[in-house]
Amino acid sequence: MTDQPGAARRLDGAAVAAAIREELKPAVAAFASKAGRPPGLALVLVGDDPASAIYVRSKETSAADSGIAVRAHRLPSTTPLADVLALVERLNADGSVDGILVQDPLPAAMGTGASTRVFDAIAPGKDVDGFHPENAGRLAQGRVTLAPCTPAGVIELLRRSDIRMRGAEAVVIGRSDIVGKPMAMLLLSEDATVTICHSRTADLAAHARRADILVAAVGRPAFVIPDMVKPGATVIDVGINRVTERARIEEWFGSGSARLAGFDQRGSAVVGDVHPAVAQVAGALTPVPGGVGPLTIAMLLRNTLRAAELRRQRGSNS
Amino acid sequence: MTDQPGAARRLDGAAVAAAIREELKPAVAAFASKAGRPPGLALVLVGDDPASAIYVRSKETSAADSGIAVRAHRLPSTTPLADVLALVERLNADGSVDGILVQDPLPAAMGTGASTRVFDAIAPGKDVDGFHPENAGRLAQGRVTLAPCTPAGVIELLRRSDIRMRGAEAVVIGRSDIVGKPMAMLLLSEDATVTICHSRTADLAAHARRADILVAAVGRPAFVIPDMVKPGATVIDVGINRVTERARIEEWFGSGSARLAGFDQRGSAVVGDVHPAVAQVAGALTPVPGGVGPLTIAMLLRNTLRAAELRRQRGSNS
Repeated sequence: MTDQPGAARRLDGAAVAAAIREELKPAVAAFASKAGRPPGLALVLVGDDPASAIYVRSKETSAADSGIAVRAHRLPSTTPLADVLALVERLNADGSVDGILVQDPLPAAMGTGASTRVFDAIAPGKDVDGFHPENAGRLAQGRVTLAPCTPAGVIELLRRSDIRMRGAEAVVIGRSDIVGKPMAMLLLSEDATVTICHSRTADLAAHARRADILVAAVGRPAFVIPDMVKPGATVIDVGINRVTERARIEEWFGSGSARLAGFDQRGSAVVGDVHPAVAQVAGALTPVPGGVGPLTIAMLLRNTLRAAELRRQRGSNS
Repeated sequence: MTDQPGAARRLDGAAVAAAIREELKPAVAAFASKAGRPPGLALVLVGDDPASAIYVRSKETSAADSGIAVRAHRLPSTTPLADVLALVERLNADGSVDGILVQDPLPAAMGTGASTRVFDAIAPGKDVDGFHPENAGRLAQGRVTLAPCTPAGVIELLRRSDIRMRGAEAVVIGRSDIVGKPMAMLLLSEDATVTICHSRTADLAAHARRADILVAAVGRPAFVIPDMVKPGATVIDVGINRVTERARIEEWFGSGSARLAGFDQRGSAVVGDVHPAVAQVAGALTPVPGGVGPLTIAMLLRNTLRAAELRRQRGSNS
């Protein structure tokens, strides 16, 4: 099923994620036996966005499989913001809940800024998404406890793939609070020299070509083309873009490709931020799907266990 | 008294700081008339480090001059950490105190990690140094309220000197929590493309030479030499290094220089991280002293007023 025929080593995020989840099982069991209860994870889904519903279901299954006591709170799309905040407060105060994740995005009807208000309301010690400013600050200050799951997963993948970060030139394309900026801070903590590029960057290709480690987190399908990649570089593709134009899929993957066949079955295909031809230039590359995505959930489970352990050490409720 | 004879425009931080302080006076008076009390700043100095004593005295004088109700708490070097933390708690709870600054460093006898424990104990809303993780996180997330004073001062200086940040190549040398990292985040918020270099960076000179805006915050005298600077670049010198070797001063500034004459009077001289000859290459340059230093205090005063206004808006004590 892979359309990555090039020379680049394939960084198998799914396999690494599976390994991490296997390692977590005994650790979760050990916590449960010490604490007299399993780590608890509360998922909150507001509304009926189909993609969000799939994500939450997937997190629920994975958590349960790891031995975490997971409960999904599914609220109608008409739920007032105040009710979501009240639920978060109840979960903050609930001693059996170690991690709280409110699935983004919230319904548009809740108004701009609703997500930020909800994320800020989560007790920092239970913030397994790592979005609370206190956790973002701890990460920036090199004393991270709960890091955002996607960039934390990338670091774990690089580490377990023996890709040297110390002294490496790392270029991050994208500066979101959820991926780009925490990714840059984590790479900096690993002693990489880090450049953050974005829509205002004057010569993005020149920056990208300097990178030993190139992280693409722009949300634009096939944005990173071979000309933007240094031969032998490690390329991490964080993008998950649903493409509905058949011609683009044919152009990028070829007329006989498995991706195009999949498109013809489903009417859409998921494409990363990295053009498939980059595999001819890069030394190592994460596939999409099956690269960074599975690691994000594995890191959520690890954050939940970590939050549980930290709360137990502090003997606190929050 | 200047030893900056080159072509570079001199970015007069002292003049900008004086202008900011003048602007603050009516704003402080307006707050006092609305709130029925002036903004309050508590300074805490533990021990008798002479440089710290000078800094605290200078902050005290500047705050008072701006109309801020400032009180310095001077504690003996033998003060237990618990007593410092108790004082911070009292100041957190004191409704007349808007800003709390504990002068770094604390006495070595307090043990490693003492500063972090004390800084973390300051209520984020009163943290006028911007060191608390919640404030570091808000800064990283582009919704800063209280930014660390030195990098905030640099941004203000660039802005008021009409130096374009949007789309500029910015290179920050140094990755401290107090200067390097928040500096990078603030430049990113201004739409610069930002690279953070440090001791593990492979080819630091090559990075520095790419910079339209080069910020040196390494703490090594005359570290940035002309060969590391792109002709016409803006160079911001954050370093304040006391040098006691006469030969170095003579080498850097010349035998007839005012700096050397000053050295001969005092037995030491303050030198930035940037070699004086950089003035021949740079387009604009901050002097040391008289560049970034005075801005740091001006930003402390501005943070104190901002903290007071935010607390008043929230109607809260902390």
